[in-house]
Amino acid sequence: MDASSAGSVLFDRIGQLYTADPEREELTGAALIIEGDRVAWLGRSADAPAADERVDVEGRAVLPGFVDSHAHLVFAGDRSAEFAARMAGEPYSAGGIRVTVEATRAASDACLAERTARLVAEMTAQGTTTVEIKSGYGLTVEDERRSLEIARAFTEETTFLGAHVVPPEISAGNAGSSASAKDAGDADEYVALVTGPMLAACAPYARWIDVFCERGAFDGDQARAVLSAGIRAGLGARVHAGQLGEGPGVRIACELGAASADHCTHLSDADVAALADSGVVATLLPGAEFATRSPYPDARRLLDAGVTVALATDCNPGSSYTSSMPFCVALAVREMRMTPLEAVRAATRGGAAALRRDDVGTLRPGARADLVVLDAPSYVHLAYRPGVPLVAQVWRAGSRVA
Amino acid sequence: MDASSAGSVLFDRIGQLYTADPEREELTGAALIIEGDRVAWLGRSADAPAADERVDVEGRAVLPGFVDSHAHLVFAGDRSAEFAARMAGEPYSAGGIRVTVEATRAASDACLAERTARLVAEMTAQGTTTVEIKSGYGLTVEDERRSLEIARAFTEETTFLGAHVVPPEISAGNAGSSASAKDAGDADEYVALVTGPMLAACAPYARWIDVFCERGAFDGDQARAVLSAGIRAGLGARVHAGQLGEGPGVRIACELGAASADHCTHLSDADVAALADSGVVATLLPGAEFATRSPYPDARRLLDAGVTVALATDCNPGSSYTSSMPFCVALAVREMRMTPLEAVRAATRGGAAALRRDDVGTLRPGARADLVVLDAPSYVHLAYRPGVPLVAQVWRAGSRVA
Repeated sequence: MDASSAGSVLFDRIGQLYTADPEREELTGAALIIEGDRVAWLGRSADAPAADERVDVEGRAVLPGFVDSHAHLVFAGDRSAEFAARMAGEPYSAGGIRVTVEATRAASDACLAERTARLVAEMTAQGTTTVEIKSGYGLTVEDERRSLEIARAFTEETTFLGAHVVPPEISAGNAGSSASAKDAGDADEYVALVTGPMLAACAPYARWIDVFCERGAFDGDQARAVLSAGIRAGLGARVHAGQLGEGPGVRIACELGAASADHCTHLSDADVAALADSGVVATLLPGAEFATRSPYPDARRLLDAGVTVALATDCNPGSSYTSSMPFCVALAVREMRMTPLEAVRAATRGGAAALRRDDVGTLRPGARADLVVLDAPSYVHLAYRPGVPLVAQVWRAGSRVA
Repeated sequence: MDASSAGSVLFDRIGQLYTADPEREELTGAALIIEGDRVAWLGRSADAPAADERVDVEGRAVLPGFVDSHAHLVFAGDRSAEFAARMAGEPYSAGGIRVTVEATRAASDACLAERTARLVAEMTAQGTTTVEIKSGYGLTVEDERRSLEIARAFTEETTFLGAHVVPPEISAGNAGSSASAKDAGDADEYVALVTGPMLAACAPYARWIDVFCERGAFDGDQARAVLSAGIRAGLGARVHAGQLGEGPGVRIACELGAASADHCTHLSDADVAALADSGVVATLLPGAEFATRSPYPDARRLLDAGVTVALATDCNPGSSYTSSMPFCVALAVREMRMTPLEAVRAATRGGAAALRRDDVGTLRPGARADLVVLDAPSYVHLAYRPGVPLVAQVWRAGSRVA
């Protein structure tokens, strides 16, 4: 059943083919042919043309590889003790990011690359075939640059997140001034670094720029400055917005034409309307609410307003250390009142929309041959059988990778 | 790294050894030796005696294989559509059990055995080394008997659950009488079958007797009759109690000296006191609350009262189709305010207590050599990394099985 990436491969006797293509989203009794790294044909089993090889799927479900559009994978260290303390009642604080920054700075390039490779392999085994990877645990020019260089070896979807938090050395250096003025001043000083020399060093390795627009991180003016500088440098924009409370992040994402506003846990009615009007994707990250024991975002409100929704893992050591898109699908159905169809759509086509990709996240002729075979007759089982590793085969660009 | 079951094997460089043994529950920098099917020695790495083979665990965590003390694995059919409808707002009803009964009766022995084998293998791969398997989808003398004969091929922990629901042919046969009198009469008629010829046919294949004591299934008198008959036939007692509402099930379990009261989602203060006084284990099944979108049991209340708590999957096609003990551990921490330690204890030693076993569920010299190696430095990661398949190796009775 191992595949060559040359020649054509027929996936036959597919019990349920979920294409994520709005024109024919779901087929039963289907077959699919890949040729090289692309999907060549799909339709009814009986109509399938000949191919060089045949994979008998034996009635299992096939769907596009998951597109995980929000992940922080380049880091060192472990925050399981912080997690356990939080589960015992301590609140989540974005300040914990600095613990990971310290460990990441101290790690060698080889160590960071090896750890990133392990997480990417873990994701692949769980059906993810496209992953976005952010920097944001370096927070110096060189540590951000090398984080992105490492990320670049694993994905074209790299995101410069120098504006994750203000690093400790800048806070410490200004320790004389009064608390809130100090905080604002620290952040402004750091934003000047991010939008200046850090952006210049990082832009060659990045496709996207991102900012953590949140109380305790960066305010609206700072977020706008970061994103605008990135856009001027040729990067696309994406924003961490509305994770811990309502704020200006979503509005700024819509104003600046960002691809995605991520988290969207706390939204005003105006935010929802702005997302719907602008076409900015709302990327929901239920793993973060699970791991911080927080209320989940209201996916139903967004879907009913016509907003495009994506699901992603937010894989990171502080607030969501899952790498599992199937787990996020199960949470979306249990906790966010998405139907299994809406959740799987958000984990495939939705993620692709959040990355402005049309070659991944759907199965149709010409798309990249990224697909998952489930050990189940239907994608509904991803929610119906939570926690169970149901991904039986993963193919990426026409080759079997898991 | 494959093992022979003869000879001795040294697991060395264990980052964290969770033994579940109250005398020394957690060791770091540890080693463990198995010999044949038993644990022979454990202690500090530096003190380890020689062994025939060595497995370098490279700093990973080792813990006892999980003991899943509540599972319904002998069935046919699929209820994913019912699940999806429930997620769209329909309430859970125990009546759905009858759908599985119909499919199970229609399935061949070979089909049922193959399906059970697949679920047991899935559980094993996720670290479960002891599983209890109930009948309860046959509900005729012969279908219950063959369910237990099939289960017996996979585990010594087989449970006769003829009293799962009243089967449809008995309800239909009495359709002339008035509704509530009919229901009671149907159940009494069926209880006579369960405690008579069905018990006689099933007892040779069963270690335990169980009853679903719940509104819509069997009332207190009926539950008492079923359990008492089983006890007279030499079986141990366990009870489904307090899943959908408060009821007499827990009190009866305590009166009759059952090993475990399972679900325990709805408990009176008297129920909690009775559990604490009697030593009956409270087996919590958070997969059922996940899949029925119901409030979770209050584990904290039970632990604070001194009740022994077990965690199990309740794996079944209607109300909890997860087979994953790691997922249940993660839910227990997120949703039931158990600490990671309490949750892992409940999934190992707690499950063993619910089955009155002292040879499994703990790692100490003389115990069965059932152990899990995690791809993580600590068991905390089972909750910290939800949904991620972290089980790297599984050993059962001294042989590597996954």
